[in-house]
Amino acid sequence: MTGERAASPSTAVVVAVGSELLTPHKSDTNSLFITERLNAIGIGVVQKLVAGDEPTGLARALRYAMSVADLVIVTGGLGPTADDVTRDVAAELLGAPLEESAAIVEAIRARFTARGLEMPEINRRQAAVPRGAEILENPGGTAPGLWLTAGNSRLVLLPGPPRELRPMFDRLVTRRLASAAGGRRVQRRVIRTTGRTESHVDELARPIYEPLAAGQPPVETTILASLGQIDLHMSTVGADPEAGARALDAAVGELAGTLGGCVVSTDGRSLPEVVGELLRGRGARVAVAESCTGGLIASRLTDVPGSSAYVHAGWVLYSNEAKVALGVASELIETHGAVSEPVAEAMAVAARAAAGVEFGLAVTGIAGPGGATPAKPVGTVCLALAGSEASPRVRRVRLPGDRERVKFQASQAALDLLRRALLRGATGS
Amino acid sequence: MTGERAASPSTAVVVAVGSELLTPHKSDTNSLFITERLNAIGIGVVQKLVAGDEPTGLARALRYAMSVADLVIVTGGLGPTADDVTRDVAAELLGAPLEESAAIVEAIRARFTARGLEMPEINRRQAAVPRGAEILENPGGTAPGLWLTAGNSRLVLLPGPPRELRPMFDRLVTRRLASAAGGRRVQRRVIRTTGRTESHVDELARPIYEPLAAGQPPVETTILASLGQIDLHMSTVGADPEAGARALDAAVGELAGTLGGCVVSTDGRSLPEVVGELLRGRGARVAVAESCTGGLIASRLTDVPGSSAYVHAGWVLYSNEAKVALGVASELIETHGAVSEPVAEAMAVAARAAAGVEFGLAVTGIAGPGGATPAKPVGTVCLALAGSEASPRVRRVRLPGDRERVKFQASQAALDLLRRALLRGATGS
Repeated sequence: MTGERAASPSTAVVVAVGSELLTPHKSDTNSLFITERLNAIGIGVVQKLVAGDEPTGLARALRYAMSVADLVIVTGGLGPTADDVTRDVAAELLGAPLEESAAIVEAIRARFTARGLEMPEINRRQAAVPRGAEILENPGGTAPGLWLTAGNSRLVLLPGPPRELRPMFDRLVTRRLASAAGGRRVQRRVIRTTGRTESHVDELARPIYEPLAAGQPPVETTILASLGQIDLHMSTVGADPEAGARALDAAVGELAGTLGGCVVSTDGRSLPEVVGELLRGRGARVAVAESCTGGLIASRLTDVPGSSAYVHAGWVLYSNEAKVALGVASELIETHGAVSEPVAEAMAVAARAAAGVEFGLAVTGIAGPGGATPAKPVGTVCLALAGSEASPRVRRVRLPGDRERVKFQASQAALDLLRRALLRGATGS
Repeated sequence: MTGERAASPSTAVVVAVGSELLTPHKSDTNSLFITERLNAIGIGVVQKLVAGDEPTGLARALRYAMSVADLVIVTGGLGPTADDVTRDVAAELLGAPLEESAAIVEAIRARFTARGLEMPEINRRQAAVPRGAEILENPGGTAPGLWLTAGNSRLVLLPGPPRELRPMFDRLVTRRLASAAGGRRVQRRVIRTTGRTESHVDELARPIYEPLAAGQPPVETTILASLGQIDLHMSTVGADPEAGARALDAAVGELAGTLGGCVVSTDGRSLPEVVGELLRGRGARVAVAESCTGGLIASRLTDVPGSSAYVHAGWVLYSNEAKVALGVASELIETHGAVSEPVAEAMAVAARAAAGVEFGLAVTGIAGPGGATPAKPVGTVCLALAGSEASPRVRRVRLPGDRERVKFQASQAALDLLRRALLRGATGS
C-alpha cells in the first residue's frame, strides 16, 4: 500500500464473495447498488472482484483489493455455515483474532425466538468479531456487518442478501462515508416510460439530452431498457446541489414533455403504483379478468401497499368454461376464438359487473409455447378496459419473447391501458 | 507465478474490461457464458474481475489475474478508440512490443470496403499485435482476438460484444482449450428444498456432504438460499464422467433421503413445475382463491408451459365482499376475521366447488405494512387445501419480511401444501 493516500476515500473496490457467483447461473448484482450509492457521494468504483468461498483465494482477493483502493466493500460469506469464510479470512488478513460477542449471540437468538424457533448452534459463528472491528447492525438478518481498518485502508464486510445489505449500506453511507467523501454529490432523476421501443425513445430524447451533457452543470443521460419499460436516467455531479437540482428539473421537464404519453413517472414510481394512485385519486376500483397473464396483473397491482382500496376482486379465467361462468357468451368464443378482441371485451365487461366496480380490465392471449395458430402467433394478446362508456377500449398487440416475457409485457400493456384512460379523465362511473 | 503449475489449465480467471461495467447500470455478463463453456471442459472459474479503461489499473488487474490462475480470459477494450487499452497493457505487461500486422489491416479494410466505407485511420490500432502473440480470427467484427503466453500462463484477449465474443470463444474451446484441459468435465446436480431454514438444511446435510468432499471423486456442495427456497448445489470435476455421475447420484440419493419431505426436486425443476407434474400425473386440477397473495399463486402456476391442463380458474378475493360472493359465509369472517383458518378453509372449499375441480387452494393473510393486529402481526398467513377428504388441510404460518416477501413465501407455502398432499396420494376426487 502506498503512503500518499488521502484520509477520505475517493475510490473503492467492491468484492462479492460466494462460489455460486462463479457458476454460469448467478452473477453479482449487489455491486450495482453499492456503486450507485457510492457514486452519489462522489466515490468511484475502480475495480470489482468476485471470489469463491475458498479461504486462500479469498485472502488473496482481499489483499489485492486493499492494494487497489483504500475503501473495500465486501459482500457475502457472513452466513452461519462452514463455507461462509469472509469473517475468518478478514480477521486473519488483518491479524485480528476472532472473539465471540455475547450481545450478538443474544440478538441472533432473539431473532429465532421471535419466530418460535431455537437458534441452531452453528449460528454462533455469526457472532465472531475480529478484535478492533466495529459492528454494523443488521436489522434484517442474523449476520451483523463489520467495519475494519488497517492504516488508511477500510475493509467493510456486509451480508450478501440484498434485503439485508441495502438498508445497512444506506446507513453506512449516511453515517460514515458521506462526510468522509467531502461534500460532492451525485443527483439523479429517472423518467420511466412504457409502450415505446428503446430506439424510439432514444430518437426522441437524444436531441434534448445530448446538448445537456455540455451544459453547466452537465447533465448525463443513460437509457436503460428492461422488459416492457424504457427508463432515462439523468444525473449531475457537483458541490452545488441546488444548481444540480435546477438543471435536472429543467431536463426532466423538457424530456418528459417531448416523450409525452409514454411517460409513466418522473419520480421512480412503478406502473402499478402510478395506476393505483390514479385510481385512488378518482375513488375508483378495478377488477381484473386474466387469461394468459394468469393472475400476474392482480399480483402486480397488489404488490403496492394499500392496494385493497382499489382492488377488491379478480378472476383468473384460464379455461373457456371459466370465461363462460363469469358471463362471457360461449358463442363469442366459438365465433372469434378465446384470444380475440370480442372475448377480451366481454371478459372486461363481465369482471366489472361481477365485482360491482368502476373498471373491468381483461387480457386474453397466447403466451406460448403452445396454442399458436398462423393467424394468432405466440405473443398475440388482446386487451380490454370496460368503464362507464358505452364501448370498452380494446387493443390487440403482438409481444416478443418467451412465455414469461409475454406474460409480463401483457401485464404492462394492460396496466398502461388503464393508466392512459385514467389520465384522459375516465372515472369508470 | 509459481513454477509447479501443470501445463494444462484447471482454473481460470475472467477479466471484463470497460469503465461502463463500473457504473450502477451495467454489469459483465460475458463471464457467465465463458464460465459455462469452461466448466463444460472441466476448467473452473476461481475469480472474476472488472477493470476500467485506465492503463495502470488494468495492468494491475491483469498481473493479479495471472498470479491467481494460469488461464486468464480478458474481454473488452480491443476497439479502435483511445480508451481501448487492453492490447497495449497486455503487450507492456508481457514485455512484447506491438507490431502492426499488414494482414489484419487488410482484413479490417476489407470489412469497411464491403460496407462501402473507407477504413478510418484509428482502426489501425486494432491491427497491432504483441510480438509472439497468436491471432484469433474474429469473423463478426474488426477486432481480432489475441492468445499470449508467458511461462505457464495463458492470457487470452477477446472482444467485448457478445455477438463477436461467443463464436470466437466456442472455436477457442474446441480447437485449443478442450484438449489442453485433458478431457476433464464438471458435472452438477441441484437439490431444491422448501419449508426449512438454511441453517436447518445445513445441519441435516452437513454430516453427509462434508465426507463427500473428501471422497473419490470429491463431491463439492454449496448451499444457496433464496426466498422460500434452499438449494444444495453439488458438483464433481474429473476425467471420468461416469465415476462423477455415479458419485453425484449417490450423493443426491443420500442427501435427499435425509432431507426428506422438504425436497422439491433433484433435477432443477421449480416448485410450480413439480406441483404441475404431480397434478397432471393424477389427472387433477386446482383452483386457487387468493387474498394476500393477490394472484401470485395462479401466476406462478401458469408460468409453466402447458399449465392450462390443470389450472382452469382462480379468484383474487381481496375484499370481504369478494370472499362472500364466492361462497364464504359472512358470519365466519365476522367471528374469526378474514385472516383465519376457518376463512381459509371456506375459501378453499368454495374455490373447489365453484371451479368444479379436484383441489381448492386458498391463502388469506396479512402482507403488510397495514392491517396487522397484536394477535395477527404482519406475516400471519392461513393456508387451506380442500380435496375429496371430509376436512381440508389447514395451516397457519408466520412469515418474515416485507409485503412482497410475505406474498412470495405465502405462495411457496401454499404450493408446498398442495405438493405434499399430492405426494401422500391425494387425488382430490
